[in-house]
Amino acid sequence: MEPFTIKDVARICGVGVSTVSRAINNHPDINPQTRQKIMEVIEENGYIPNNSARNLKRSESKTIAVLIRGITNPFFQGMIKTIEQITERRRYGFLLQQVDEENDEIEAALELEKEKKPCGIVFLGGTYSHKEAKVRQLKAPFVVCTITLGPEVDRSLYSSVAIDDVRAGYEMTSYLISMGHRRIAMAAAWKEDMAIGRMRLEGYCKALEDHGIPIDPELILYTEKGQDAYSMANGYQVAARFIRSGKEATAFLVISDNAAFGVCKAIRDAGKTVPGDYSVASFDGIEMASYYNPSLTTMKQPCDEMAKEAMDILMERIDGFGENEHRIFKAQLTVGESVRNIQI
Amino acid sequence: MEPFTIKDVARICGVGVSTVSRAINNHPDINPQTRQKIMEVIEENGYIPNNSARNLKRSESKTIAVLIRGITNPFFQGMIKTIEQITERRRYGFLLQQVDEENDEIEAALELEKEKKPCGIVFLGGTYSHKEAKVRQLKAPFVVCTITLGPEVDRSLYSSVAIDDVRAGYEMTSYLISMGHRRIAMAAAWKEDMAIGRMRLEGYCKALEDHGIPIDPELILYTEKGQDAYSMANGYQVAARFIRSGKEATAFLVISDNAAFGVCKAIRDAGKTVPGDYSVASFDGIEMASYYNPSLTTMKQPCDEMAKEAMDILMERIDGFGENEHRIFKAQLTVGESVRNIQI
Repeated sequence: MEPFTIKDVARICGVGVSTVSRAINNHPDINPQTRQKIMEVIEENGYIPNNSARNLKRSESKTIAVLIRGITNPFFQGMIKTIEQITERRRYGFLLQQVDEENDEIEAALELEKEKKPCGIVFLGGTYSHKEAKVRQLKAPFVVCTITLGPEVDRSLYSSVAIDDVRAGYEMTSYLISMGHRRIAMAAAWKEDMAIGRMRLEGYCKALEDHGIPIDPELILYTEKGQDAYSMANGYQVAARFIRSGKEATAFLVISDNAAFGVCKAIRDAGKTVPGDYSVASFDGIEMASYYNPSLTTMKQPCDEMAKEAMDILMERIDGFGENEHRIFKAQLTVGESVRNIQI
Repeated sequence: MEPFTIKDVARICGVGVSTVSRAINNHPDINPQTRQKIMEVIEENGYIPNNSARNLKRSESKTIAVLIRGITNPFFQGMIKTIEQITERRRYGFLLQQVDEENDEIEAALELEKEKKPCGIVFLGGTYSHKEAKVRQLKAPFVVCTITLGPEVDRSLYSSVAIDDVRAGYEMTSYLISMGHRRIAMAAAWKEDMAIGRMRLEGYCKALEDHGIPIDPELILYTEKGQDAYSMANGYQVAARFIRSGKEATAFLVISDNAAFGVCKAIRDAGKTVPGDYSVASFDGIEMASYYNPSLTTMKQPCDEMAKEAMDILMERIDGFGENEHRIFKAQLTVGESVRNIQI
C-alpha cells in the first residue's frame, strides 16, 4: 500500500495542500470546522506530518513554558522551583501558566504556542485522555510530568517523567499489610478518574488480592463529583463520613499527602488518634509531610530528580539532538510516625 | 513657577517630544540608554505624564495578569483561586506569571504589558521599594495585594488591598502578653526587610513597649540572608538554634504560619511540646493552620475578601469609572490550640 500523504488528506477534504499544512501547524488563518475535518481525516488515516515541514516556519522565543494543572496542589511547588532555577541558569525565559479545571491542557498549550512561541513546554499534572491528532499539533518539544499520556498516543511524539503509580499503590498497601492491617480504607479519587488516582487504586486492589485479602467495596471511599480529591477538605470529609458510618478499618491509605492532612484532622476531631486508633499512609512526600504531627508515612516522589530529568530531556530536544524519552522513577517508601504495627 | 511639561523633558534630554512619549509608554522602539535618561529627568523634575495621552494608544487584550512573588508560599493560593474564578465569571482571560527572587515586579509587569497588553494587573506579594517614575510607566490599572507601595509613590497612581501588618503584630503580641507571656521570641524576617516582615516586627516592639516589657534584642530572631524567611525550613532552623542556645522564652511569635510549622517541628524534635513548653502564634491564617496538630493561633488575613475587593476595584478601573482605592482590612485573631495561658 502506498503511504498516505498530505495530498491524500487535501483530496479527501476538498481543500488545497497549503490548507492542510495550516491545519497541522495550528495556523490562525483557517476556518475551525475545516481544521477539525482535516484533523479527523489525518487521525483516521494515520497520516504522520513530515517533521521537517512542520519545523520549517518555527520562529521561537527562547522561553520555556510550564503549564500546570492544579496550582494549589503543594506537590508541584518544589518542581516549579527546580524548573525555574534550571531555565534561569541556562538563560531561558520562564513562563508559568495555569490550566483551570474546565480547560484542556493541550488546547491551552496550542493557544500559548500561537502567542508566545515557547521553544519547549513542560506539563505539570493533568489527565491522560488526549487525542493523538491534537497532540501532534504542538510544535515545540514537550515533556509531560507526573503522568504519561494514554496508550493511544504514539510515544515517540512526546517525553514523560513519572513514577509508576500502580506500583507505588501496591507497595504502600503491602507495607500496611506487613504492619498487620487487613481492613484498609482507601481514600480514592473520583470513580471516573483517568489519571494517577485510578492507578494508585489499582495498586491497592492488586496488593490486597496478592495477599489473599478480599476487596471490600465499602472500604473504597471515592471522592464526590465536584470535589477536589487532592484537597485537605476532601480528605476530612471522606474520613469523617467513614468514621461516622461505624464501619471498621484500622488504616487509611490516602490518595495524596495533602488529603491525608484532612484525614488526620477528621480522626482527631472524632476523638481518636493517629496512629493509635487509625494508621494513615499516603502518596507524594511533600515537604509538609515531614513537618506534620505526626509526620506521614508516604510514598515519596523524587520531585527534584524528576524535574531535572524533564529539563535535561527538554533541553536536548531543543538543542536538536536526543530523542523523546520516557523515564519512570521509583517512589520511595518513607516511614514517618503515622503508621502503627498492630501485631505488636 | 511654570509647570514642567513634556517639552521641557525633551529639551533637557536633547530628544524630540515623540521620543519622550515613547519612553513614558514603554515603547519597544527606543534606545534603553535614552529611555533611562528620560525617566531620570522625569523623576528629578516631578513631571507627571498626561493621562489621556498615555491612554491614547492603548490596544488591550481582555486579560487580567497576576504577577506573583513567592509562588511556593501557600498564603497566595487561596487568593489565586478567587481571582481566577472572578476573571472567569467576568469572561476575562487569566494570566499568571511568577516573579523570581532576583527580578523586580514592576519591570516584569512592563515586560508583560509589551507582550500581552493585559487590561489590568494584580500584584501578589512583593516589596514596597519602587521608584515612582517606574510605576508611572505601567499603562494598565493595577492593584497591589497584601502590601502597599512605599510612601514615596503617589497613591493616586495605584490601588492596594492589605491588612494593617503593624496592627496585626501589635494585637497578637498583646494577646500573648494577656496569656501571661513576657519572654516572647519573635521569628522575624531579614534585618534589612522592607516589607510586611518589618511591619509585623514593629507591631511586636510597640506592644511590648506599651505593656512595659523591655525589648530584648536576643529575642528577635532574624532570618539569615539567602534564606526564605517564610519557609518551614527557616522556621525550623531559627527555632532549633534558639532552643539550643538555652535562652529563655515561653512563646514564639512567628512571621508566618508556614514558618510556624517549622518552629513547631523544631520544638518537638527538641523533646518539648506545643503549647506545653512553648506557645506558638503566627500570621496569615492559611488553610493548613487549622489542619495542623496543634491548630495554630494566628492572625488570619481575610484572603477571599481581599481578593474580591482587589478585583472589584480593578474591574471598575478597567470599565473606566472609579478612582484608585486603598483598602485596609482587619486581620482576625483566630484562636487555635498552640497558645497556652501560663498564668493558670
